[in-house]
Amino acid sequence: MSLLAVGTVAYDDIETPYAKQSHVFGGSAMYFSVAASSFSQVSLVGVVGEDVRRADLEFLRSRGIDTSGVEIQPGKTFRWGGRYETDWNTRTTLFTELNVLEHFDPKLTPAQRKSRFVFLANAKPRVQHAALDQIEQAAFVMADTMNLWIDIDKPDLLKLLRRIDAVVLNEEEARMLTGEKNLLKAAGAVLGLGPRYVILKKGEHGAFLLGADVHFSIPAYPVDEVYDPTGAGDCFAGGFMGFLASQGRVTPGALRRAMLMGTCTASYCVEGFGVEALARLGADAIPSRYDQLLSIVTV
Amino acid sequence: MSLLAVGTVAYDDIETPYAKQSHVFGGSAMYFSVAASSFSQVSLVGVVGEDVRRADLEFLRSRGIDTSGVEIQPGKTFRWGGRYETDWNTRTTLFTELNVLEHFDPKLTPAQRKSRFVFLANAKPRVQHAALDQIEQAAFVMADTMNLWIDIDKPDLLKLLRRIDAVVLNEEEARMLTGEKNLLKAAGAVLGLGPRYVILKKGEHGAFLLGADVHFSIPAYPVDEVYDPTGAGDCFAGGFMGFLASQGRVTPGALRRAMLMGTCTASYCVEGFGVEALARLGADAIPSRYDQLLSIVTV
Repeated sequence: MSLLAVGTVAYDDIETPYAKQSHVFGGSAMYFSVAASSFSQVSLVGVVGEDVRRADLEFLRSRGIDTSGVEIQPGKTFRWGGRYETDWNTRTTLFTELNVLEHFDPKLTPAQRKSRFVFLANAKPRVQHAALDQIEQAAFVMADTMNLWIDIDKPDLLKLLRRIDAVVLNEEEARMLTGEKNLLKAAGAVLGLGPRYVILKKGEHGAFLLGADVHFSIPAYPVDEVYDPTGAGDCFAGGFMGFLASQGRVTPGALRRAMLMGTCTASYCVEGFGVEALARLGADAIPSRYDQLLSIVTV
Repeated sequence: MSLLAVGTVAYDDIETPYAKQSHVFGGSAMYFSVAASSFSQVSLVGVVGEDVRRADLEFLRSRGIDTSGVEIQPGKTFRWGGRYETDWNTRTTLFTELNVLEHFDPKLTPAQRKSRFVFLANAKPRVQHAALDQIEQAAFVMADTMNLWIDIDKPDLLKLLRRIDAVVLNEEEARMLTGEKNLLKAAGAVLGLGPRYVILKKGEHGAFLLGADVHFSIPAYPVDEVYDPTGAGDCFAGGFMGFLASQGRVTPGALRRAMLMGTCTASYCVEGFGVEALARLGADAIPSRYDQLLSIVTV
């Protein structure tokens, strides 16, 4: 079924303990779309500047992603720079240049308004609301956010949580949003804020899903070498929603399998800079890791 | 089948962010034995001082634990004091008094020498070797260790690893022992040192088991409130080996189920000071958490 992603497209400067690359094609909605495109037809709504490389948009289209909703605006594309420390768990933001993102106002085509599955990638809650206002009959809307919005835009974010089906958070965000230290309690408190499901991402320690009808926990897929963790969370969300959209129905069983698909997709993401590792995957790549992960978790 | 535990029995002073208790009955072999006694008949070999409380030994016997191998020596029982910080992940050792443990020389009875399942709790490798020298025909020997022995007694520890079937380590110990940062690589390197299986404990993030014929990962059981994490790793090992001994055979399936049993047992351990939470469990307690954990991890 149709899957819509709304959010940032970016050029990132990334430093890891082993390498450094600048102008890496990135942005949370971009990572999400590439990840989800392994499972479903995806429409991407975002904004880029005139500096956007045509090859990057061409790459998205080569994955079957509808880029007609990616506006090209005068000015430069959103830029972000970050550095990872040797333990991979500490990320320092080196710079953020909003550029054309500053006035991002998502406009959905009539077809996009009818999307059944919608992902509101991390963005100012106002932008997420603006996109959601245009959605007519979604079956499943999931949103991401970040500590900044919990800090400075909490009322708007809380309003958003009452309008969506699922929210995906990392540990820090869940604790910050709810004031609960214990992650399961924090997840329960998030459900009290509106969404039917919450996914809690724990990085190298996996993720869990909590809802009234499901509680499911999954370890990370064990990768040999991490090259660049940027976008891993968005690729997890992309694999998760791409698979759900391909199933058409949101059942506890589909949600559990979607958690595995998200995990496997994210595991490939971290094995290359930007989306390069995802870009080179063969058709058998995700099913093969799915089977391996299944064998690792099956009692 | 018969299960033997060799190692420390102690009195601990424990400070948590919420409470403080002194002279808590503890020691790694003691925690292990109490945990394992939910599944199997356990023999405990250790040493205590004349200050040992008769009620504590009586408690062990009330769990069906054979305490004939617990020597009472002139002097005081081993004592340890530790403090946990609010995140539970940082533990500071406040003091260690070896007392009668300093000259601990395990002596096994003829019946204990025939034990089929043997756990060598964390102790000086020399003590672990001394116990193992007396074992005649074990089916499965597992050992624990700690950073101190990796640091000061590595040759003796490496010799031990070549004599046992399984070793249980936490993340820090696995990295220290192998020089590998990536935990799966570290686990693989440990297998190269001798044992057929390695269990890597990740605390609140669960544990995984690696061997030539099995790779299995399990999250921690989600507990509402942690009261005292002391002994959780030993209770994990106790639930794991107690269940294995009850099955009699070490198959990949039994090992996977044993990982769940260990996880559930440890989850009760942290819900009280010392072994108090384990002591009050009803017969249905572990099966009920087993079923819940199974539902959380089943795809």
